[in-house]
Amino acid sequence: MVANSQGTTTVLATGCSGFLGRHCAAALVRRGFNVHAVSRTRHGVAADGITWHNLDLQSREATERLIAALRPSHLLHLAWVTTPDRYRRAAENLDWMEASLALVKAFAEQGGRRFVGAGSCAEYEPMGDRCIEDKTSIRPASLYGQCKAAFWMGTDAYARNYGFSAAWGRVFLPYGPGDEPRRLVPSLLTALGAGRSIDVTDGSQVRDFVYATDVADLLVRLLETPQATGAYNVGTGHGTAVRQVIEKVARHFHALELVRFGARPGPTDEPPFLVADMAKVERGLGWRAATSIENGLEELLSKAGAFSPQSVP
Amino acid sequence: MVANSQGTTTVLATGCSGFLGRHCAAALVRRGFNVHAVSRTRHGVAADGITWHNLDLQSREATERLIAALRPSHLLHLAWVTTPDRYRRAAENLDWMEASLALVKAFAEQGGRRFVGAGSCAEYEPMGDRCIEDKTSIRPASLYGQCKAAFWMGTDAYARNYGFSAAWGRVFLPYGPGDEPRRLVPSLLTALGAGRSIDVTDGSQVRDFVYATDVADLLVRLLETPQATGAYNVGTGHGTAVRQVIEKVARHFHALELVRFGARPGPTDEPPFLVADMAKVERGLGWRAATSIENGLEELLSKAGAFSPQSVP
Repeated sequence: MVANSQGTTTVLATGCSGFLGRHCAAALVRRGFNVHAVSRTRHGVAADGITWHNLDLQSREATERLIAALRPSHLLHLAWVTTPDRYRRAAENLDWMEASLALVKAFAEQGGRRFVGAGSCAEYEPMGDRCIEDKTSIRPASLYGQCKAAFWMGTDAYARNYGFSAAWGRVFLPYGPGDEPRRLVPSLLTALGAGRSIDVTDGSQVRDFVYATDVADLLVRLLETPQATGAYNVGTGHGTAVRQVIEKVARHFHALELVRFGARPGPTDEPPFLVADMAKVERGLGWRAATSIENGLEELLSKAGAFSPQSVP
Repeated sequence: MVANSQGTTTVLATGCSGFLGRHCAAALVRRGFNVHAVSRTRHGVAADGITWHNLDLQSREATERLIAALRPSHLLHLAWVTTPDRYRRAAENLDWMEASLALVKAFAEQGGRRFVGAGSCAEYEPMGDRCIEDKTSIRPASLYGQCKAAFWMGTDAYARNYGFSAAWGRVFLPYGPGDEPRRLVPSLLTALGAGRSIDVTDGSQVRDFVYATDVADLLVRLLETPQATGAYNVGTGHGTAVRQVIEKVARHFHALELVRFGARPGPTDEPPFLVADMAKVERGLGWRAATSIENGLEELLSKAGAFSPQSVP
C-alpha cells in the first residue's frame, strides 16, 4: 500500500507491547509498512513480521542512536505510562513528556517526514458538549492530560520548524481484545464470568467507547495521510453511559445481582460527559468507526474465557 | 519585603542581560530579594547588588549544577530568543523550550517553591476581542508563541507534580528605556531624532503597549504572590494603533514628513487587534499599569539622545 524507493515505508512504532500498540502493529503490517518496534525486553524479527529493537525510550542517548541508525520516515508514538488507576497522576507522565520530546527531536533531526502520536480525551476541558478538536478548550484536569497536551504542543513546534507533517489522535475510551485486565470491561468479564461479585461506580458517566481495532485503523489511516495535520479525535461520536456497558455484560452472564452499583466512588476529576465530535475525521479522512459498542461487546462476550493478550489478532 | 529564615529570599533570575530582564533585576533588588542572575559573559557580584553566575542555559548539566549549588526558592525565567524580526520563526525557540523545561525540572527537583516566567501575547489566537487568560484560545501563529505555550504547559505539569506554585506572565508589547535599538520606538527615536526618514507599516494594527517598568513591576508582584497561579496578562488593557505612536514621536521632532507609512509590509502572521484583558490581574493582584502610552512616550522623548541600555535605572 505505502511505498518508498525501497518498496516499503519504514515506520518506527513505540508502545507496541501495550494494548493499543499490539493492534496498531498488526494493522501496520497488514498495510505493508516495514515495522520497527521498540521494547525494553524484546529483540529481533518476530514471526508476525515486526522487527523489535531493545530500547528504553527513557534513555535519550539510546533513542538517538536507534533513530540515527534506522532513520525512519514515519513515527507512530504510542508509548506512555498507562497503568490503570495510577496513570492519571503518576510522576512518570513528566518522564514520558520529556522522553517523547527527545524522541521527536531526534526523528526530526534525522529527516523524519510523518509523525502520528496517541493523545487523549483527557486533554480537553469538556463543557457538556461533544469535544471538537480545534474548538474545545485544552485545559486538562489530570497530570496525564497535561503532559500529553504539552508534548503535542511541543511536537507541533518541532513539526513547524523542521517541516515534517504531524497529527495527533486524541483517543477516547478504548476497549477490546487484549485490554489491561484491571480496566472496566475485562474486569467485568473476569468477575462475572467466574460468578464473582464486582464493585462499580454508579455508572452515570457517559463515555465514547471505541473498539481497539478501530483505534488502530484510524491511527494508521492518519499515518498514511500526511496532509492531515493537527489534532484528530479517535472515537465513535456516540456516547454510552458506563452503566449500560456494565448491564449488558451482566445480562450476558445472567449476573446482574453480582454488580454492586455505587460501591466504588465515581471519578472526581473526570467530567460526566466525554464524547468525541467526529466531524473533522469524517470530513478529512472519510473515516467512521466500524464497531458500535453493542457489536464490540458482543464480540468480546463471544470470546469470553479466551480473553487474554494472546487473543489479539 | 520578602524574607526567609536567612532574612532574604533567594531568586534565580534568567535573561537579566536583556531589555525586560534589566528592569526586573532592578525591581527585585528594590524589593529586597537576594538576586542571582545568569549570564554567558558576566560573573561575580555587581555594584547594583546582583550576584552574576557565568552560565549558558543551553547546557543542561551546567544549569543543573548551578541550581543544585544555589537551591533557589524562587525562579524568574525571562531568557529566550528575542532578536527582533528573527525571533518569531527562529529555530532557537525549540532550544529555549527544551532548555527551559530542563531548568524548571532542576528547580523542582531541588525544592523550588515559586516560579514566574515571561510568556507572550503571541500564544493567543485573538478573535477581535481582548485576550482573556483562561478563555481565549491558545493557538499560536508563530513558532515563538508555540514554543512559549508548550513550555508553559510543561511547566504547569511540573508544578502540579512537585507541588510548587507557578505563574506565567503573557507580555503584550513592551517598550521603554533600554529597548532593543531595532524595535519600533527606539528606531523611531533614533531616525527621526537624527532627521533621517524611516519606513514603517501602515500602522493600522492595534497593540497593548506596556512600559518596561510596569512589566517588571507586575512580574515581580507575581513572584511575591504565590497564591496567584496560572496565566496572567502583562499589559495595560488599552489598545493603541501603531500609527498613533509613530505620529506622536514624529510630531515631537516636527518630522511627520520623514515617516513613510506603508513602505514596510504589515505583519502577515499577526492579528490586527492584540490587547490584554486585565480583569484577572486587577481582581487577583489589585494591580494596574502605572504608565499610559502617552506618559511612557513623553518619558522616552524627554530623554531622547540619552537613549541607550545604560539609561536603565
